[in-house]
Amino acid sequence: MVEHLIEDVARWPHHDGSALTVSDPFPRLGDVVGVRLRVPRSLGTVQGVWLRSVRDAEPHYDAAALLPCPESGGRQGGADVVWDWYAAELRIVNPVQSYRWLVRVGGRNHWLNAAGFFALDVRDDHDFRVTSVDPERSTATPDWVHRSVMYQVFPDRFARSAQADQHSTPEWAIACDWNTTEVIGQGPETPRQFFGGDLPGALEKLDHIQSLGATVVYLTPMFPARSNHRYDASDFSGVDPLLGGDEALTELVQAAHARGLRVIGDLTANHSGDAHEWFRAARADPDAPEADYYYFDDAHETYVAWLGVDSLPKFNWKSEGLRSRFVLDEDSMVARWLRPPFDLDGWRIDVGNMTGRQGAEDLNHEVAALIRARMREIKPDAMLLAESTSDAAADFQGDTWQGAMTYTNFTRPLWHWLSGDTALEGEEWFFGVPPGVVDRIDGREFLATHLDFVSGYPWTVRRCNMNALDTHDTARAAGRMQPGGQAVGVVLQYTMPGIPMVFMGDEFGLTGWNGEASRTPMPWDDPARVSEDLRGIYGRLGALRQSSPALLDGGIRWVHAAGDVLAFVREHAEQSVLVVAARDDFELALPRSLVSATPVERWRREAQLNGGISLASGDDGVLTLRGAAGADAGVWILPGVPQP
Amino acid sequence: MVEHLIEDVARWPHHDGSALTVSDPFPRLGDVVGVRLRVPRSLGTVQGVWLRSVRDAEPHYDAAALLPCPESGGRQGGADVVWDWYAAELRIVNPVQSYRWLVRVGGRNHWLNAAGFFALDVRDDHDFRVTSVDPERSTATPDWVHRSVMYQVFPDRFARSAQADQHSTPEWAIACDWNTTEVIGQGPETPRQFFGGDLPGALEKLDHIQSLGATVVYLTPMFPARSNHRYDASDFSGVDPLLGGDEALTELVQAAHARGLRVIGDLTANHSGDAHEWFRAARADPDAPEADYYYFDDAHETYVAWLGVDSLPKFNWKSEGLRSRFVLDEDSMVARWLRPPFDLDGWRIDVGNMTGRQGAEDLNHEVAALIRARMREIKPDAMLLAESTSDAAADFQGDTWQGAMTYTNFTRPLWHWLSGDTALEGEEWFFGVPPGVVDRIDGREFLATHLDFVSGYPWTVRRCNMNALDTHDTARAAGRMQPGGQAVGVVLQYTMPGIPMVFMGDEFGLTGWNGEASRTPMPWDDPARVSEDLRGIYGRLGALRQSSPALLDGGIRWVHAAGDVLAFVREHAEQSVLVVAARDDFELALPRSLVSATPVERWRREAQLNGGISLASGDDGVLTLRGAAGADAGVWILPGVPQP
Repeated sequence: MVEHLIEDVARWPHHDGSALTVSDPFPRLGDVVGVRLRVPRSLGTVQGVWLRSVRDAEPHYDAAALLPCPESGGRQGGADVVWDWYAAELRIVNPVQSYRWLVRVGGRNHWLNAAGFFALDVRDDHDFRVTSVDPERSTATPDWVHRSVMYQVFPDRFARSAQADQHSTPEWAIACDWNTTEVIGQGPETPRQFFGGDLPGALEKLDHIQSLGATVVYLTPMFPARSNHRYDASDFSGVDPLLGGDEALTELVQAAHARGLRVIGDLTANHSGDAHEWFRAARADPDAPEADYYYFDDAHETYVAWLGVDSLPKFNWKSEGLRSRFVLDEDSMVARWLRPPFDLDGWRIDVGNMTGRQGAEDLNHEVAALIRARMREIKPDAMLLAESTSDAAADFQGDTWQGAMTYTNFTRPLWHWLSGDTALEGEEWFFGVPPGVVDRIDGREFLATHLDFVSGYPWTVRRCNMNALDTHDTARAAGRMQPGGQAVGVVLQYTMPGIPMVFMGDEFGLTGWNGEASRTPMPWDDPARVSEDLRGIYGRLGALRQSSPALLDGGIRWVHAAGDVLAFVREHAEQSVLVVAARDDFELALPRSLVSATPVERWRREAQLNGGISLASGDDGVLTLRGAAGADAGVWILPGVPQP
Repeated sequence: MVEHLIEDVARWPHHDGSALTVSDPFPRLGDVVGVRLRVPRSLGTVQGVWLRSVRDAEPHYDAAALLPCPESGGRQGGADVVWDWYAAELRIVNPVQSYRWLVRVGGRNHWLNAAGFFALDVRDDHDFRVTSVDPERSTATPDWVHRSVMYQVFPDRFARSAQADQHSTPEWAIACDWNTTEVIGQGPETPRQFFGGDLPGALEKLDHIQSLGATVVYLTPMFPARSNHRYDASDFSGVDPLLGGDEALTELVQAAHARGLRVIGDLTANHSGDAHEWFRAARADPDAPEADYYYFDDAHETYVAWLGVDSLPKFNWKSEGLRSRFVLDEDSMVARWLRPPFDLDGWRIDVGNMTGRQGAEDLNHEVAALIRARMREIKPDAMLLAESTSDAAADFQGDTWQGAMTYTNFTRPLWHWLSGDTALEGEEWFFGVPPGVVDRIDGREFLATHLDFVSGYPWTVRRCNMNALDTHDTARAAGRMQPGGQAVGVVLQYTMPGIPMVFMGDEFGLTGWNGEASRTPMPWDDPARVSEDLRGIYGRLGALRQSSPALLDGGIRWVHAAGDVLAFVREHAEQSVLVVAARDDFELALPRSLVSATPVERWRREAQLNGGISLASGDDGVLTLRGAAGADAGVWILPGVPQP
């Protein structure tokens, strides 16, 4: 693992896979794609640029051509030239076509890959990659997916309609009062606390969801189960009556669609609950058709379960029967909910990483491809994300899942950069990483970690990966990050490539020491439970994002990452957006031209957090950024990027 | 890609997969393997150690236990304690079981993986890994494989027997004189220069081969072809009569075996020559049984060839017929040569990386597994290495090929560290990496690159990877490396984990600007063509290696890597070996205890290169190393490592 030259990030050559650098994000096998590299003159004298692609596992080199410079009216020279553009042709020889750039500069070979700019030989794992589209099996990810903002609803805790009062408390549950019962984060009562939120309740809150800029409602499971989280589904064929049943879902989705909101569901492909009819049939009779849906021992006594939790028996994807009923049948679990009357817009697949994997068997990719293909038949433009909490890149190469619900490339480095003084020692903030601490890192380390993890994804997947501050599986950012930290995190969440995913209640600054404890009922009617009202920030950023071609579709180029400050430009032909995020007061000088070719006077301030960050540019071309309001962030709209 | 703490390499916790750290290198699925970590006290106060393994793609943590300290008679404390040993149990859940260590030290989480020690989150790609042995399909790699020293013979240029004079020059060839014709490195005559070396000639030189410490003779192709390199085989069923035919091979192998030398062949699984009977039959008739051995277009006019070279038509491994005749048949190409009378001891597979890969198809792993399983049937302890010149790790996970003939982790960083003043600008030293230069790097960069590339392999593969200074496919080290550089390289080649692979002629300091130009006939009878006689160095190192449990089977722990000096310890229960390699004069101080618990007086000098490196240790525990003879290297034998 070789160091990159991260101190000089502003002077790195630039390529990221976005539209300014790759001519076709979804080519077919055999196509030739135009790829471009921008090299800042300030890097030094370039002796040559080559595109290195790997074809059938063998490296192949093409010399890149220097293009006429757009900044100087087609001339290649001129003192006013900041960037040189190079172009090469990338042949899509393999389904996932990887490549990187060799730049000989300052008398030394350097490599640019998706993880950074290196003066030493580097492994292939961090290469850029373009995934070809197999027209038989999957379609290109529709643009609306990466342009989404998701809002995560945990139904039992989101909103409770009047109708909910008519339901009696189920046998497994402990009835709780919405505003007064404390959520228990650990122990046998945790899954049994029943607050009684339902889908009609959620329907009443669509205004709220949209006011935050969200475009997609993500519902955690809604199938009948024996827990408040419902990941232990007992039946995939109907909505839990406690949530309002099928009709409530139909009404919710129709109302959402009428507003231009989409709705996706949450499906566990790794296991069912032990109360599921399939499992009960399988367990009762080794000769039942469902018996091979699970992994029983020869005596048909024990079975494989998710992390050994008996109530969650693991699916055996070798089973043709399971494949039929879960995916392939006319009325399969995957298919039926995407059709009217339910008409869901896609799925988030729970435990995507473990699905189909069991010891020596690895059917993960096959199952993912099966689900993707089936969804395409039913609803070609559906969304398909999958959970894979750790290093997910190997399973997310653009040919199956569209994006990952992962924490490694955004959530975790963000927590580390913005970590507060609160010691988490001994507590579990995130899926049991011992010892549960969030060590504070600096901006340079944030970027290094971020790049390390994002570099495994094709750009088309990277922009569909989840950017969350927290979820129902983690502690809450509020109260854990430094004072003002969460709001800075929200700015990064809405402006970095990826799908912002807002866990319900973050907009009220709710707290919680672990995932379960964070599933607090929303404080609709109890202002005392609102720690910090951040709705305005979410709303402003949501509106900005939806109106910005650079934030929706642009590339990303980092201009600074050190200590207390992160700064990058989202770039697009029509518009660029400069984002500066700081966790403390700072002063910073950069060559203005490395941010944008246009003078600062033409930059437009937008979506300032506390308004404490100022920019100034002198005749000497130096851009000075100052932060005087502690944790703060700002966004500036700049002209688009001129291309040759 | 996150930086590791390489400045402090001597103070890293240590684990490498060798016997001191993993209880069973070849476990079966479901086994529990004991794994150990050594943490130097000088690292700081350790708050906890955990083993992180990935099970079915989900991280799993086990706390590691502190063991009683061996250095202080079972006590855990004591001022004399240098290392703390931690132990954990690794369950082999998946066929390739990956894991790494989490060490909380100095109030911060650190990760130790195969690439180094990191203070930030890291991707999974660099995890340690243990590959389970599937008793049905492959056997554990026999120990003789990783204990080998290979000597590469390019038959046309190695030795010419009297018998060779009786052969007439074939039609395709240009007859050349052994001592006076200059080898042409590029152009149409390159493959046609015919010097007439043969296998009876090689047989006469077995003394020479053994005198260098070699234990395996690796013969590049010996099948009839239409080039001097014979990679364009026209027939796999008989030895080229120009080399002496089948009988000459039989005699060579018998003679070698009688001396305890093994012999392996070179088989191209990616393509045949266009003169091969299979291809001629296939080309002549689309209905021929051989037609599907290759990739023809629908009109049966064009075909896929290796890198577009028409004379090397690519095999189509979907073909059952090809699988039968190449691998599975009683008398298949893979099988027949391993049996008497030929009795080869294994294969080096040419173009292993591209084999079975063609566009959307990837049968590489399947073909590799097929070859491995078939070889096991014929000769269970055969050697199976495969060529993969670049980043090979993804294909070398221990379940198929035993080791890689690759250049990334040893050859290339070594060239960069020892590069001479000779500008290679515009010349091709290695497989066309533009612009062909060898940038000089420092010792820190050498280690970073080395670790980056080796970290993708299980230890059991890593120790079977080829360590070559050069091969028939590269320029020669001599004349390219700095003065005295080659000899320093030889010390590293014989002492670092991996199989030293000596290309014939390196022992005479032969030169050549690219692979073809380096295929110089051996200067047996022409002392004027010996640039530098290095036979003594090779011989001394070969003898040392064969007698050293640490060099044959030990782990590796780096104690210094910076600027002009590299130093590491090979460690084993019975013995340790300290290796110091320098490219210039130096002086260096290290805590002696981080090299070995024993006083310097008990270290034994061995295999010094120029004798210019000295060691001294004072009462203060500081070990001072000095180099006063420029490029130099030295080896010291130390006591073995005491374990709890």
